[in-house]
Amino acid sequence: MIVLVINTGSSSIKYEVFDMVADCRIGGGAIEGIGQGKIADHRAGLRRLIDDLLNAENGMVADPAQISAVGHRVVHGGESLADPVVVDDAVEQKIEENVPLAPLHNPANLLGIRTAREMFPAVPQVAVFDTAFHRTMPPRAYLYALPYHLYEDLRLRRYGFHGTSHAYVTEQAARLMECPVSAVNLITLHLGNGASAAAVRAGQCIDTSMGMTPLEGLVMGTRCGDLDPSVPFFLGEQTGMTPADINALLNKESGLKGLCGEADMREVIARRDGGDARATAALEVYVYRLQKYIGAYTAALGGVDGLVFTGGVGERSALIRQEILTGLEHIGLRLDTDRNAVASEQARFIHHDDGAVKIMVIPTDEERHIARQVMNVLSSR
Amino acid sequence: MIVLVINTGSSSIKYEVFDMVADCRIGGGAIEGIGQGKIADHRAGLRRLIDDLLNAENGMVADPAQISAVGHRVVHGGESLADPVVVDDAVEQKIEENVPLAPLHNPANLLGIRTAREMFPAVPQVAVFDTAFHRTMPPRAYLYALPYHLYEDLRLRRYGFHGTSHAYVTEQAARLMECPVSAVNLITLHLGNGASAAAVRAGQCIDTSMGMTPLEGLVMGTRCGDLDPSVPFFLGEQTGMTPADINALLNKESGLKGLCGEADMREVIARRDGGDARATAALEVYVYRLQKYIGAYTAALGGVDGLVFTGGVGERSALIRQEILTGLEHIGLRLDTDRNAVASEQARFIHHDDGAVKIMVIPTDEERHIARQVMNVLSSR
Repeated sequence: MIVLVINTGSSSIKYEVFDMVADCRIGGGAIEGIGQGKIADHRAGLRRLIDDLLNAENGMVADPAQISAVGHRVVHGGESLADPVVVDDAVEQKIEENVPLAPLHNPANLLGIRTAREMFPAVPQVAVFDTAFHRTMPPRAYLYALPYHLYEDLRLRRYGFHGTSHAYVTEQAARLMECPVSAVNLITLHLGNGASAAAVRAGQCIDTSMGMTPLEGLVMGTRCGDLDPSVPFFLGEQTGMTPADINALLNKESGLKGLCGEADMREVIARRDGGDARATAALEVYVYRLQKYIGAYTAALGGVDGLVFTGGVGERSALIRQEILTGLEHIGLRLDTDRNAVASEQARFIHHDDGAVKIMVIPTDEERHIARQVMNVLSSR
Repeated sequence: MIVLVINTGSSSIKYEVFDMVADCRIGGGAIEGIGQGKIADHRAGLRRLIDDLLNAENGMVADPAQISAVGHRVVHGGESLADPVVVDDAVEQKIEENVPLAPLHNPANLLGIRTAREMFPAVPQVAVFDTAFHRTMPPRAYLYALPYHLYEDLRLRRYGFHGTSHAYVTEQAARLMECPVSAVNLITLHLGNGASAAAVRAGQCIDTSMGMTPLEGLVMGTRCGDLDPSVPFFLGEQTGMTPADINALLNKESGLKGLCGEADMREVIARRDGGDARATAALEVYVYRLQKYIGAYTAALGGVDGLVFTGGVGERSALIRQEILTGLEHIGLRLDTDRNAVASEQARFIHHDDGAVKIMVIPTDEERHIARQVMNVLSSR
């Protein structure tokens, strides 16, 4: 039972291959530069991917017919799509309808699905949505205070992203805590180049920091996160930039990169350690925004059992974890600095034994979670 | 020692008169409809105001020469103006320079100042800024995660508003708690038609919910508060609205009014009690947003001694206070429902004796605070 998981971008296809009987990852890779030279289009990209899979030296499968299913990461399910679903024409149509909500991502995801359906017509294609985990949010969390008809007519609301990661670490955290997932209240922090927080009550998401798009919330590598909604108008008036220019600025030139010229957290820390004042300010804003979200979600949950760090920064930067938790002892978060300092690829506790809230580092594995979702869908057919 | 405090809008001048020797309010009123008929302009409005002051039947002063100073509420001091200041040409110039940050408010405030300077050339005119109290925020709270040159070149940052109210209730809360203001950590909630929260450490503001403009933060009567910064672009693309239309929609057609068609809190509550589903949703979003800010500022402050409700809704709606505090017992907020139910014009405690955090209702008095600031400035000359 081999499952191929693919994540199709505008010029790339990332993939991983799982043997779901053994529950192990066989391998993976990425086809880059699609449409930019040697690889004409996504169809050619997928053919190259299959060549890689079959490669005599380090191939992952002996025959494409061994692939039992393909799982596709789809960024935006909108309101019409939540649970993982076997793609048919009606599902394709719904993903298409959600393009206005994710104009950069859904078209590429859809292209990957269409190409794979053409090339593997006999294999079930399963779409797994990055918004799915957040679909349990109540209206008080997903409604913006805008004219209600905008929600009814345009589906303008908070959706949240990184759902596959938040869902995966929620399950792993419950396992590590030796509790049923329905018995734990968690705050999960996915800190990578993109970053988001989620409030999880009894295993179900009740709030998350990303919004209608992945621009809202935490400070990210190049995205601004929370911002006075007047700022786009002010920038238009003061600089003459077009809405498209401003949107690009908020998504690609802001965040850590905007504040200090550098999006990569390791570089930002190195610069601060070298005395760079703007890197210092960038880290202060980054850490403080996270502290406020932890406080906000503590209030929203009515009590927290565990706090989870995941994503590249969350998993690997003991320093950032420590800075986030400094000053939050009064809400039950007490780090054990020795445990925090240990580098490991394992899910682990890093709180002090006296801390009221368990603090965890849990490496995320979105592709594995997608493969598991694919299995669930197919076994329930 | 009589101080006239005026708040000049585009078509109105609101005023109050204080006898600062007796520390009592003599009276006040509003000149409305300036430029709309009988009152040609602000000069005519101010003349009418003086007529009202001198009115034989219920006049407040016998002779305009008794007015020792005029205090002006100015919405935006930007980065160049913080402390109350006697207006001269240089100060006028700076207020003018901050017009891009508050295009609706500063021009009217400035017109009030210029007219009053012309009409009372011998009387000191003192400007008191609504942003002043928030000027102690550290960079981690006032910087947005945007390209740093936008802060340097355009002064694009969080400023915060309602500062006169947050400052006044901070002083009153310390008095009620019988502590020096430098010894208390507070969260102050100004809930009126506009609404904002502030985190106050040792009497100094360290964060506030309004941003570069009064649009960010809490849900308000007609303003949306926090929003995914992508929404303006999405609305432009999907509806063809201009930036000016969208800006007006976020400021004047959103908030409670947007969600349920009604901006007045009493009406929203009445509709919900009548079973209106959208009024129910509007209140849930309003209350939940406040709970998240209380949690966020609790984390930011590293411990809270007191929570203050002020503004029309905060002072008068026992129901809204109760709904905000329901579910926050785990962070030390425990309401005494009997004390909360008492209607009063006095500053008072409403927490349960067992609550770790003192909860207060403190009627705000921005004009009195401005009059006191005027006295401070003049006595320190």
